[in-house]
Amino acid sequence: MKVDGTPYRSIWPAANGQDAEIIDQTRLPHEFVTTSLKTLDDAARAIKDMWVRGAPLIGATAAYGMALAIRDDASDSRIAEAYDVLYATRPTAVNLRWALDDMRPRLLVLPESERRAAAWQRAAEICDEDVGINSGIGDHGLPLIEAAWERKGRSGTVNVLTHCNAGWLATVDWGTATSPIYKAFEKGIPVHVWVDETRPRNQGAGLTAWELNHHGVPHTVIVDNVGGHLMQHGQVDLCITGTDRTTAHGDVCNKIGTYLKALAAHDNGVPFYVALPSPTIDWTIGDGVREVPIEQRDATEVSQVYGRTPDGRLTTVQIVPDGSACANYAFDVTPSRLVTGLITERGVCVASADGLAGLFPDRVQSGAA
Amino acid sequence: MKVDGTPYRSIWPAANGQDAEIIDQTRLPHEFVTTSLKTLDDAARAIKDMWVRGAPLIGATAAYGMALAIRDDASDSRIAEAYDVLYATRPTAVNLRWALDDMRPRLLVLPESERRAAAWQRAAEICDEDVGINSGIGDHGLPLIEAAWERKGRSGTVNVLTHCNAGWLATVDWGTATSPIYKAFEKGIPVHVWVDETRPRNQGAGLTAWELNHHGVPHTVIVDNVGGHLMQHGQVDLCITGTDRTTAHGDVCNKIGTYLKALAAHDNGVPFYVALPSPTIDWTIGDGVREVPIEQRDATEVSQVYGRTPDGRLTTVQIVPDGSACANYAFDVTPSRLVTGLITERGVCVASADGLAGLFPDRVQSGAA
Repeated sequence: MKVDGTPYRSIWPAANGQDAEIIDQTRLPHEFVTTSLKTLDDAARAIKDMWVRGAPLIGATAAYGMALAIRDDASDSRIAEAYDVLYATRPTAVNLRWALDDMRPRLLVLPESERRAAAWQRAAEICDEDVGINSGIGDHGLPLIEAAWERKGRSGTVNVLTHCNAGWLATVDWGTATSPIYKAFEKGIPVHVWVDETRPRNQGAGLTAWELNHHGVPHTVIVDNVGGHLMQHGQVDLCITGTDRTTAHGDVCNKIGTYLKALAAHDNGVPFYVALPSPTIDWTIGDGVREVPIEQRDATEVSQVYGRTPDGRLTTVQIVPDGSACANYAFDVTPSRLVTGLITERGVCVASADGLAGLFPDRVQSGAA
Repeated sequence: MKVDGTPYRSIWPAANGQDAEIIDQTRLPHEFVTTSLKTLDDAARAIKDMWVRGAPLIGATAAYGMALAIRDDASDSRIAEAYDVLYATRPTAVNLRWALDDMRPRLLVLPESERRAAAWQRAAEICDEDVGINSGIGDHGLPLIEAAWERKGRSGTVNVLTHCNAGWLATVDWGTATSPIYKAFEKGIPVHVWVDETRPRNQGAGLTAWELNHHGVPHTVIVDNVGGHLMQHGQVDLCITGTDRTTAHGDVCNKIGTYLKALAAHDNGVPFYVALPSPTIDWTIGDGVREVPIEQRDATEVSQVYGRTPDGRLTTVQIVPDGSACANYAFDVTPSRLVTGLITERGVCVASADGLAGLFPDRVQSGAA
């Protein structure tokens, strides 16, 4: 999407034909800095230190990392080393492993002399495939926003509430939850986005707001407590969030707080949609609340908030008294009964085992569904 | 309650018999500083600059402000001046006006020579009355925590979730939502409190956590997004919040985000109680969602977070990109259907017109109920 009028992806091959370039997302929203990845270690650090984040982008960065690793040495042992180094950066990231498992066998079957070019080509393909999936999500989600616009008699604005950052910065382009929004905006539908700040890491306030701001999409940042009030008063026409993991029954594991917004949407008759690339469906799990383990992260993400001081310094500030404990649950599970529909690259379906099986008859497994 | 073992109230007459003393709550949770109010202007600034906050404490400070104002000049005109100065500090604060309207006629009927002593005495009485009300709330709420403890077979801990600061710092002592918790703690029930940080102003992370920490009550600070997940997993035994305004039908207007927690409690069968001193019941209003206007506050409370830097400075940090709008709705309304019960100084009642009328037959008005 655009940054001040210039189209960007979140990762791209450098003009020199040698490096990959990324946006250092740790500097957002206060500084827009792009940086070159020149080596395996650069790519590993970019993932580990969260210069890049979001499952699809992590996968794409790992793919480029493999390509960078074999620039001067494309031996089997170097490929094995690169695999291990990249995998160790965030071992729980599903897309990271997927990208590495995709790249490695493709390279190993080739003569060493052809591996470097093949790696670059495959990394670019992985990026293009992600863009295609997300664009498809947008195309299928767009009619939902158009329908809301029609319901309002094509007057005023369509107000979409989103949580966290399921935007283009988390993918290679378009994003997932944001893709229908960008498509609607491009089509001239007057869309306005309520952006949940999304404590503790503030990906909404920091990243989603930055994205929308730079692409020119009208939006307003709110604290996570506000959405229910807005829905009570007719100020939200639909919700669209992303998901980190969707069960075969249509339960949605997403950033902590998603469940509370789904409850409010249900209580007020506001449609609640979840956008997802189908690879994030976990066909082996049915009951998300009971079966999905929820990661607990470092308490300092709760006790400290990162931002820019009035004199321009980037720092954290502690908001909790010394001596008070903090707990940091990273995700929650929204039961499918609260989800109006799942927006995938193949279309929109009911959030249920039957709904998902209808769209993905080739993938459903008998075990969970 | 206690600060490191020493009992405190949030306002008290100074040992010199001349001044009133308060805790500068703007310095919490990072610094515990008490300060003397010596003049009318001191008291007015303390209210206006939010050194003191919370409806009951604002009322008590206004009462002492009147007493300070007439130290050297107890004339009718000075009383009128003090009334105007204090009323202008936070004109929407109901208790502020109530305290001033209580004090003024009591003083005006007395000879000037008796007014100063009468003002000090009445200010002290207003404080004692607030403490009595809150202690009563605690006594009536305690059995609810005891019942939860019994339901758990008297093993483990009773986990109470609260939102915002309805603690002793917002009152003269005990607090409202915290009063049953402190009573349970004093009685030896192993209570643990989940403290919502309560964005945007972080009164939970900053004040409730500080209170509990210094009194010794086990607690854990969580971001506002977490409560739903905890309730899904049986980690909350009951919720107790305060309220700024309760309608005659039992709808509850409280700090933004309360509604979302009430939805989650309802969805998971967790009792959701609201503690309130009966003067905060608005007998003229029935449907809170439709009738209670919701204050919008300054957007900078959303875009900027206040805290302590690693090198010890107290500052704000901006968390939203330049150019992104923020909206700041201060309160929301929780419909009575989501409230298990109202804890008042007269007892616990169902959150309904009948429930309230049963406890307060002397106050109910025919109009709204």
